[in-house]
Amino acid sequence: MKALVAGGAGFIGSHLIDALLEKGHQVVCIDTFVIGTRKNIEHLRDNPDFKFYELSLCNLEEVNKIFEKEDIDFVFHLAANSDIQASASNPSIEYANTYTTTFNLLECMRVNNVKKLFFASTSAVYGEKEGEQVSEYSTQLEPISYYGAAKLGAEALISAFTYMNSFSSLVFRFPNVIGPRLTHGVIFDFVKRLKQNPEGLTILGDGSQSKPYMHVYDLVDGIMKFSIGIKEGVTLYNIGVETQTTVTKIADIICENMNLKNVKYSYTGGRGGWKGDVPVFAYNLDKIHENGWKARWTSDEAVAKTVEEVI
Amino acid sequence: MKALVAGGAGFIGSHLIDALLEKGHQVVCIDTFVIGTRKNIEHLRDNPDFKFYELSLCNLEEVNKIFEKEDIDFVFHLAANSDIQASASNPSIEYANTYTTTFNLLECMRVNNVKKLFFASTSAVYGEKEGEQVSEYSTQLEPISYYGAAKLGAEALISAFTYMNSFSSLVFRFPNVIGPRLTHGVIFDFVKRLKQNPEGLTILGDGSQSKPYMHVYDLVDGIMKFSIGIKEGVTLYNIGVETQTTVTKIADIICENMNLKNVKYSYTGGRGGWKGDVPVFAYNLDKIHENGWKARWTSDEAVAKTVEEVI
Repeated sequence: MKALVAGGAGFIGSHLIDALLEKGHQVVCIDTFVIGTRKNIEHLRDNPDFKFYELSLCNLEEVNKIFEKEDIDFVFHLAANSDIQASASNPSIEYANTYTTTFNLLECMRVNNVKKLFFASTSAVYGEKEGEQVSEYSTQLEPISYYGAAKLGAEALISAFTYMNSFSSLVFRFPNVIGPRLTHGVIFDFVKRLKQNPEGLTILGDGSQSKPYMHVYDLVDGIMKFSIGIKEGVTLYNIGVETQTTVTKIADIICENMNLKNVKYSYTGGRGGWKGDVPVFAYNLDKIHENGWKARWTSDEAVAKTVEEVI
Repeated sequence: MKALVAGGAGFIGSHLIDALLEKGHQVVCIDTFVIGTRKNIEHLRDNPDFKFYELSLCNLEEVNKIFEKEDIDFVFHLAANSDIQASASNPSIEYANTYTTTFNLLECMRVNNVKKLFFASTSAVYGEKEGEQVSEYSTQLEPISYYGAAKLGAEALISAFTYMNSFSSLVFRFPNVIGPRLTHGVIFDFVKRLKQNPEGLTILGDGSQSKPYMHVYDLVDGIMKFSIGIKEGVTLYNIGVETQTTVTKIADIICENMNLKNVKYSYTGGRGGWKGDVPVFAYNLDKIHENGWKARWTSDEAVAKTVEEVI
């Protein structure tokens, strides 16, 4: 098949492209390099099954030209603002890069009769649900970040476009995803700062913020597994790992891997890292487990593996 | 207080303005006259407490100028595409008129430090839930129309903006609303067609489509009651009536009021009126009832009252 990967030069998108090409598919990638990088897709330059367009998905007319030109079978939509902290002071970033990109892709699918979609959603659609394992069908959706709000809006669009046009749509709500090519987030940030100053590390909040971290190889494995034989309608899953890792534990794992001893941690205090951040978070994964898929690495293992890969 | 009513020249918005002025508030109205009409606000022209701006809410910069100029205390947001059938073939209408209008108002509130919001949401956020009384916190949100999708996206934005900026937001999910100044929908349509041809009436679907119809005076009463003393955070209610009226019953009530006998109904057949229409629908109203509010007129009574008012 010919797959369009939107946001394909990004961290997760570029790994997905590797997996799709590995399986013998053709890939058309669209990216703006706002968050994605040339480096992530450099190794694909001479691959005859890979084609790249540098273009903003906010430009409906130009995106539609690509749909008209390429004979797309399946859209993998991973284009979004992925830096929640950045949009906290400028919600327009989410309006454009997370919501509008989704609307435009769906509209191009509708007009050009493309029926299959994978969408990268997020745990942020749930909002702050401390003490609860959030599940796909019984947890209230109350996003507290502009990012989570735009992703929930995107899911709503997918619900209507899928019904109105008989799409087959797979939606995964991602947890924190880590691994090679990571460009931001707590691991990336700690490694960078410890390289500059191996004596001490400032940690946002009280360090007890606890989230599930999933390795990107596990995530791509899940996407590939459930994309094959996708059914008409919307299929929605939480995807992730059952365990969580605290921010302090991440710092410990990094220090151990970098052979740093007696690093002095200083905490800024308070609950979350910033307003809109969800400090404690756990997934109910019954649905995806019952459908025969499980992550290979726990949260701590994914963190340790990533640290080895990126230091 | 000074209230901004977005979409104030529309059917519901103009009734809300009448009620706000009646209570002694000042009103700033923004409308484009795409669906709203000059006629709906004609009677307010010389009212010193009423001010009108003809402007699209899609124009963020111009809307922001109004926020800078007027000292707004409370935003009542009723601007949207309200013609679901029209957007079924052109989803961009919802992207612009339902979602973008909401984003822009919220962004102006954030930047100009306006904290109070009323938002007109819809039963369409639930999607098709036959055999179930949809309730605010236990029913899956799976919109099947672009309209419902854009409104759910707007609710998601309100969730995040409210959290991030300490807004006090009241969200009502409206059923079908009817009454004087109605400009489209089944009652308006049947009356118009029966005036043209009193012998026969073509009815979309099989006539058994059944929905709760609420009189606009009841709705405005509910908005006014819950807007006073609104609390920080999002307060969400289904608002409506417990009963439903079938499409055939609406035709009967209209014929009776118009003194038409032996009108021949012919049915186009099938379930809904058009794709994206939800044919059977019932609300769980426990939450709003427990909070001390109930509609005065049943669904059938609201239909009969409206027919008297509009024929």
